[in-house]
Amino acid sequence: MKREKLIFLTNDDSYRSKGFAAAIQIARQFGRVIAIAPDAPQSGMSQAITIYNPLYLRKVREEEGVLVYSLNGTPVDCVKMAFDHLFRDEKVDLVISGINHGSNAAVNVLYSGTMGAAIEAAFYNIPSIGLSLTDHDLDADFEGAIKYGTQIVESVLRGDMPQPLCLNVNVPNIPCSDIKGIRLSRQTRGYWREEFYKRTDPHGRDYFWLTGAFSNAEPTAEDTDEWALANGYVSIVPVQVDLTAYTQMAQLSKYF
Amino acid sequence: MKREKLIFLTNDDSYRSKGFAAAIQIARQFGRVIAIAPDAPQSGMSQAITIYNPLYLRKVREEEGVLVYSLNGTPVDCVKMAFDHLFRDEKVDLVISGINHGSNAAVNVLYSGTMGAAIEAAFYNIPSIGLSLTDHDLDADFEGAIKYGTQIVESVLRGDMPQPLCLNVNVPNIPCSDIKGIRLSRQTRGYWREEFYKRTDPHGRDYFWLTGAFSNAEPTAEDTDEWALANGYVSIVPVQVDLTAYTQMAQLSKYF
Repeated sequence: MKREKLIFLTNDDSYRSKGFAAAIQIARQFGRVIAIAPDAPQSGMSQAITIYNPLYLRKVREEEGVLVYSLNGTPVDCVKMAFDHLFRDEKVDLVISGINHGSNAAVNVLYSGTMGAAIEAAFYNIPSIGLSLTDHDLDADFEGAIKYGTQIVESVLRGDMPQPLCLNVNVPNIPCSDIKGIRLSRQTRGYWREEFYKRTDPHGRDYFWLTGAFSNAEPTAEDTDEWALANGYVSIVPVQVDLTAYTQMAQLSKYF
Repeated sequence: MKREKLIFLTNDDSYRSKGFAAAIQIARQFGRVIAIAPDAPQSGMSQAITIYNPLYLRKVREEEGVLVYSLNGTPVDCVKMAFDHLFRDEKVDLVISGINHGSNAAVNVLYSGTMGAAIEAAFYNIPSIGLSLTDHDLDADFEGAIKYGTQIVESVLRGDMPQPLCLNVNVPNIPCSDIKGIRLSRQTRGYWREEFYKRTDPHGRDYFWLTGAFSNAEPTAEDTDEWALANGYVSIVPVQVDLTAYTQMAQLSKYF
């Protein structure tokens, strides 16, 4: 196994999650691990930052090759705290955000705290991987995610991929031996449609839970991440952050 | 003045902000206003959704042509609550998110609760405008933002622009009469670098405030939103949501 790399980890399910432990397991094969992860679940926090609350940083684990802090903030706060403050003098080779409990394929990339952190890491010119397993179970089986995650980390650490590099990696929730391989994919078009479950609290006030389902606008498109996952492949989507709709520029220039 | 349009409003500074009142002022020139806005500031909440907390919806204003609800959630929650629940049977012509107190140009589009809501609205195939003034002051002067916002709303309501349409509009913080006009722009490259201000609480525990400065990677590029704003123009960037880095695909296909 390769040694001597320095890998920064974060997560959106908190430093206590099984997926975070799985990410440490991947990273330790390649070298030393430093981490800042939220002290409570931060799923669905997107690229949110904490403006109105003070941030408390706490060392929660220190042992040979593994140093973990928790922060009462978002995954993006964790990345900023790492590279602009706590670990600013460290030379980090790679960032892994995850392993997330739940899919971050398709439009989930926009809502995902895991991918928010991975994108933020790329702003510091460090290659980053957002790694997710399409299983929300707290006790999910990470065998396939660890196997393929390790393979992808090894490829990225070779160091000759295009930069800035931010990979959105999703692993299907099937037995590891059934996974057919890796497919480089594009983000599937489609959106969530929500159902609000209405309840009444003990004080007689109505409240709602947000829940919904993803509607895939192109289920037969074989070059998409959703197709890869539905067909037994690990999907990799390289991510960029320029949201400019260049294809609309010419048409809009008639108005503005 | 044009009448009979139905405009949905939201905001990330809460329904009590001066910018929200300014958005109502714009929208009322064109017709009826319905709104759901957060009950507390949600700046920097990006496209976050609320998974772990129940959502309470409360009617806070009802008068001729203006109906406003508050929600204890994110700006994106407000949009989902509107179009998947409360106002699902309404035929909405336009969504305005704002007017934000503070710039959402350049990479701010990714952190912005205002733009998170505008992007979410576009997922419902409704033209949307995220409107921001580059002034964080709670009592900012919205004259220019109202004037140019009105002009842009009028253009969009003509209804023949490309769809889905999501515009990131930023107005410079200068006297209205000094604004030179509108420039269709692209998102400026650049990132925030943070400074964490360390304090000690009354219990002797250290904590941090997140603060920072934007570093513009291309300050002389005249086709960018930051250039437009710095030179006295209102910037408009059309926004899309496919984060796939297509330009890296060929190179990455050697590895995966």
